[in-house]
Amino acid sequence: MRYELYYHPTIPGRGELVRLALEEAGADYVDVARKSGKTGAPAMFKIIEDRRAARPPFAPPFLKVGQLVIAQTANILFYLGPRLKLAPRDEAGQLWLNQLQLTVTDFVVEIHDTHHPIGSWLYYEDQRPEAKRRSKGFWRYRVPKFLGYFEQVLRKNGGTYLVGRRLTYVDLSLFQIIDGLRYAFPKRMKRLEKKIPGLVALHDRVAARPRINAYLASKRRIAFSEWGIFRYFKELDG
Amino acid sequence: MRYELYYHPTIPGRGELVRLALEEAGADYVDVARKSGKTGAPAMFKIIEDRRAARPPFAPPFLKVGQLVIAQTANILFYLGPRLKLAPRDEAGQLWLNQLQLTVTDFVVEIHDTHHPIGSWLYYEDQRPEAKRRSKGFWRYRVPKFLGYFEQVLRKNGGTYLVGRRLTYVDLSLFQIIDGLRYAFPKRMKRLEKKIPGLVALHDRVAARPRINAYLASKRRIAFSEWGIFRYFKELDG
Repeated sequence: MRYELYYHPTIPGRGELVRLALEEAGADYVDVARKSGKTGAPAMFKIIEDRRAARPPFAPPFLKVGQLVIAQTANILFYLGPRLKLAPRDEAGQLWLNQLQLTVTDFVVEIHDTHHPIGSWLYYEDQRPEAKRRSKGFWRYRVPKFLGYFEQVLRKNGGTYLVGRRLTYVDLSLFQIIDGLRYAFPKRMKRLEKKIPGLVALHDRVAARPRINAYLASKRRIAFSEWGIFRYFKELDG
Repeated sequence: MRYELYYHPTIPGRGELVRLALEEAGADYVDVARKSGKTGAPAMFKIIEDRRAARPPFAPPFLKVGQLVIAQTANILFYLGPRLKLAPRDEAGQLWLNQLQLTVTDFVVEIHDTHHPIGSWLYYEDQRPEAKRRSKGFWRYRVPKFLGYFEQVLRKNGGTYLVGRRLTYVDLSLFQIIDGLRYAFPKRMKRLEKKIPGLVALHDRVAARPRINAYLASKRRIAFSEWGIFRYFKELDG
């Protein structure tokens, strides 16, 4: 089965959480919006704006599998998990994995909103003082709560994976979270890392997996930038 | 099977989306944190703070079913849906329903953040100008986008339900969204309603269903207030 992934072509964003799962599994997939010309980004917007579609996505990323179009990152991963062998087989395990992934989803919104607290419809430059204020509290209250929680879950499960005895998609997502926070908040993150040794080690193990390692070195990996979820602004880094 | 629902005892919040599903189905459930004394709210915090738990919830709401503890609103509803006959039976239908519910989840965060754009760790009074600014853009850009999307999905599906040919849990959640927006932004909502006739009619049909109607008139229904997701502040209502 060939998977078609649709996401903004120039930012890692939420699409990267799906891409990491496809890459780790060695799945046969095509990154549609990154193809050039009319088969690239216009193809993505064509699906979103298709007024005749019975089940239109609200926003990217979405995955096309035959006639099925699946949107919402956690929903895509829930679908892919068992098929890519990146999820437990039992229902209770899959619910627990989904629960953790939805907590990652919540965290991603809060990370994004550090630089856009007033609204995604405004430029960062139009909400800079508010972004400084939100970032300060975010690092004081929210990062310790979220990462402390995942660190605890990881430790309770033996320290190697968050769920079960094999790698799952939430391990890959947490790799991306750690990687992105290091990019966006290098100083703050450096101070925090001693408190989350398990997650830091998980990040390094994921990065060293053969397929992920090759992927990260390839042109398919999109670099962090001034756009997307994880953005670096010196004044937000404490 | 008896379900135990755990959520803050005095606000409707995200817990209400689960409660509406349990009520519509006539399920056997107990609202644990609303019981008085040690079996009430302390029981909820005991589970959240249990350091020995292998699969602790990050936050309420969560549902206890035998030994299983399930958190994250959309995850709880995904579990309950087929069991309460509030979801389609086929996988594609369940994924589509979950996708819509996760879009409701995103919308709920944005509704909450109209009054808390800088952070949930601060009082509203400490972020009032920012809340006014965020609310203005939220109503200009985000409400039309979200509710316009759900209106379109409803219409495409025939106008009675969002998914399939029977009531599902996302219909109940949209009832609560419309109800909450009317409470929090009465003036703005009144102006918008003519653009979403399908959702307004859905709200009324849900409210008139025998079990929901009885529930809304009961003491089990928690009123909106100055706390939770939907809060009324005159200055945010345009």
